[in-house]
Amino acid sequence: MKRLFILSITLLFLCSANSLYAKKKRVDLIIRGGTIVTMDANWRIIKNGSVAIRKNKIVAVGTARSIARKYFSNRRIYARNKVVIPGLINTHTHIPMTIFRGIADDLDLNEWLTKYIFPAEARNVNERMVRIGTRLGLGELIRGGTTTYTDMYYFEDAVADETSKAGVRGVLGETLIDFPAPDNKTFDDGLKYAEKFIKKWKGNSLVIPAVAPHAPYTVSQDRLIAARALSDKYEVPLLAHLAEAPSEVEFIRKNKNMRPIEYVAKIGFLSKRLVAAHVVYANDKEIEMLKRIGVGVSHNPQSNMKLAAGVAPIPQMLKANLRLGLGTDGAASNNDLNLWEEMDTAAKLHKAFSKDPKVVSAKEAFQMATIGGARALHLEDKIGSIEAGKLADIVIVNFDSLHQTPFYNVYSQLVYTTKASDVHTTIINGKIVMRNRRLLTLNERLIKKQANVLARKVVKSLRTKN
Amino acid sequence: MKRLFILSITLLFLCSANSLYAKKKRVDLIIRGGTIVTMDANWRIIKNGSVAIRKNKIVAVGTARSIARKYFSNRRIYARNKVVIPGLINTHTHIPMTIFRGIADDLDLNEWLTKYIFPAEARNVNERMVRIGTRLGLGELIRGGTTTYTDMYYFEDAVADETSKAGVRGVLGETLIDFPAPDNKTFDDGLKYAEKFIKKWKGNSLVIPAVAPHAPYTVSQDRLIAARALSDKYEVPLLAHLAEAPSEVEFIRKNKNMRPIEYVAKIGFLSKRLVAAHVVYANDKEIEMLKRIGVGVSHNPQSNMKLAAGVAPIPQMLKANLRLGLGTDGAASNNDLNLWEEMDTAAKLHKAFSKDPKVVSAKEAFQMATIGGARALHLEDKIGSIEAGKLADIVIVNFDSLHQTPFYNVYSQLVYTTKASDVHTTIINGKIVMRNRRLLTLNERLIKKQANVLARKVVKSLRTKN
Repeated sequence: MKRLFILSITLLFLCSANSLYAKKKRVDLIIRGGTIVTMDANWRIIKNGSVAIRKNKIVAVGTARSIARKYFSNRRIYARNKVVIPGLINTHTHIPMTIFRGIADDLDLNEWLTKYIFPAEARNVNERMVRIGTRLGLGELIRGGTTTYTDMYYFEDAVADETSKAGVRGVLGETLIDFPAPDNKTFDDGLKYAEKFIKKWKGNSLVIPAVAPHAPYTVSQDRLIAARALSDKYEVPLLAHLAEAPSEVEFIRKNKNMRPIEYVAKIGFLSKRLVAAHVVYANDKEIEMLKRIGVGVSHNPQSNMKLAAGVAPIPQMLKANLRLGLGTDGAASNNDLNLWEEMDTAAKLHKAFSKDPKVVSAKEAFQMATIGGARALHLEDKIGSIEAGKLADIVIVNFDSLHQTPFYNVYSQLVYTTKASDVHTTIINGKIVMRNRRLLTLNERLIKKQANVLARKVVKSLRTKN
Repeated sequence: MKRLFILSITLLFLCSANSLYAKKKRVDLIIRGGTIVTMDANWRIIKNGSVAIRKNKIVAVGTARSIARKYFSNRRIYARNKVVIPGLINTHTHIPMTIFRGIADDLDLNEWLTKYIFPAEARNVNERMVRIGTRLGLGELIRGGTTTYTDMYYFEDAVADETSKAGVRGVLGETLIDFPAPDNKTFDDGLKYAEKFIKKWKGNSLVIPAVAPHAPYTVSQDRLIAARALSDKYEVPLLAHLAEAPSEVEFIRKNKNMRPIEYVAKIGFLSKRLVAAHVVYANDKEIEMLKRIGVGVSHNPQSNMKLAAGVAPIPQMLKANLRLGLGTDGAASNNDLNLWEEMDTAAKLHKAFSKDPKVVSAKEAFQMATIGGARALHLEDKIGSIEAGKLADIVIVNFDSLHQTPFYNVYSQLVYTTKASDVHTTIINGKIVMRNRRLLTLNERLIKKQANVLARKVVKSLRTKN
């Protein structure tokens, strides 16, 4: 009798457990037990939270208990004592130039360009260099928890190919410029290349093709408009440098008798697809106009400082709620692709410059590097926060290193003390591309070897006279 | 016959090898095969170099071959593909405050101090907190390759004890202030404590005791002079904050109708033993005076930025060849003890602020963090460069991480791309305190645990009303 009772109880339990189990939905990956900094509209932070991922999307976010009730997966990452954040978004770089990292520093912009960068580019930029430089940069991005980056360079099809192979998300545009480029000798050839490039990559799960006219001082009026038209035709982002340096302001004043933003507005270049890099020289009226049109802005504090370009009016842009993200610029100027340092610098630079320790808080700096960057790229419905329905671009950060101890406030800790080396795991489009600091889609040792060989050639090329 | 010939040749060889060996001098440690950035007066860089160390001193520096000819040691560190630099020197911090790292940010100085820092200090600073905070900070310093640091706080005898136990070099001074301090309720008690402290530690191989009157706006005129007299009496450094923030400038203008530096000069506080922290508000005449007297200056770029204190005239100070070093300030304000980021920031900040990309070169920034810091502390005959006769404070840095690839210029790479996490080995006073990123004199796990427990108490203490 007693045995029968125990048997029936056991059966009952198994049945209910089974029915409970059957009700649970299977997902491909669960991140479990970390502090989740969602960056959603409510700034929700979930302690002991979980994220359920199916294919390349986030299915659910919540407390570890609530997710465990509804979802199961054979693949789990335990994030206890770690912080789970949206992947960082780099809104401006020239990734193949990572090969030129540290080639020349502390020079006048003109000397830097004409004595080092232009000759180095003229003598070394080809598809092979672009591929090696891109892989080098991609490795650094992944190791620093950047999951989406924005690029404008040459041989961009090779950049896209490498980016897609490494499993990184990229908004990538072939640079269009009035001078002969390493791959396209005329602007029109460049434009044709860009159209072909867009057709090839449009719809790709990782690469978002873009059009990238270099800047209003290096691309003539008609050509700026032609580039914008191409962006409109295919509904792809338009990338350009804008209002970066005093020399540009002076050039456009001299030639057009206008301010840079005033000029591009007047000729109809400003568009809701534009991602404008730098935007150092913008007054309140211009900020208002950029906001109204929906232009995205990429703030590159370290590059602007190092090249003495100026200090962008970021407190004003934040106040105007502009689509505002952070970029590293190329490693040739800055000299890395580290968004953690850009966040830290952004928060500090504007306090110093505006003499107000309250501007650009840690929260705002972290916002710029995540959902702000997504808004700048016009991708805020897809990336930039950890929310159900968004793409699974997620980074898990160690929070227990000595330099992060003790821990009072999560945004402060992320912006002021966390380093790129604290990134533990990087997930892009649902796929783990780095785990426990080991790159899974790139051969780090080979990349370093190839980059070093190439760098020796670059040095040699700069020694020759022509 | 043939055998005899071979035997005699062998004997001859062994004898000569033995006599060669006998001629070699035994040392305690040889660092072999790295690129040595000596920071000596000739800026000598030795590729494939070696450093021979006996007891706590550098005996010889040269090419690996030349050192191998003259010295041998049973203890060797191979530094192939690595860079060997003088240990970094932090010229201003408040190390126990590492416990308050990130407790409050992005606030007005006044609000930050009165709502957070002062209450947190009043309710938590005791000898135990000072010891735990010091160990936490020391761990971070060693992990970042800082071998000498400068401190002013309370319970400084406990700071000195922990510093000496951890094997770190410190210029340490008990803070003297007009208000009741956690350990000494009156200024006179503080002064007595300071004298006792100096007597106890003077002559120690690691701890250099100092006198540390807080600042000209928190210590009255007579007391500043009394502090200076104590420094002169025992020939020890005099540490103080000076000309840091607009509020100080305003306070001294109001009360003394002078500029801060003008005031301390007039009352006879400036001395050749003074290490003045911040010195943001200094005009050309004042810089010239500091130079003439031999005052050391500690530049704290990140702290000055984050607290919106202002931007120090560093290009002018470099031009005047002032005794100029770098400091991190306390981790409560900045929020780490990372001199690599201070170097990087110093080089970039002054380019932005002076609108000149040539000022504060990588070379100058690295100089500030090494021999410049030694000069600021009046210790340039003992530390700050890798030269025979100097104390063996040496750091070995990895130079092959992905974010450091490729490698063109050593100073650029050190300042613009190397991170604290690239430090491989830290040697202080001839003793290895970190090897392959493992702390050898501190228990990292225990430190983190104790710091986290303490931090929870700090949070609780701020919730209570009194």
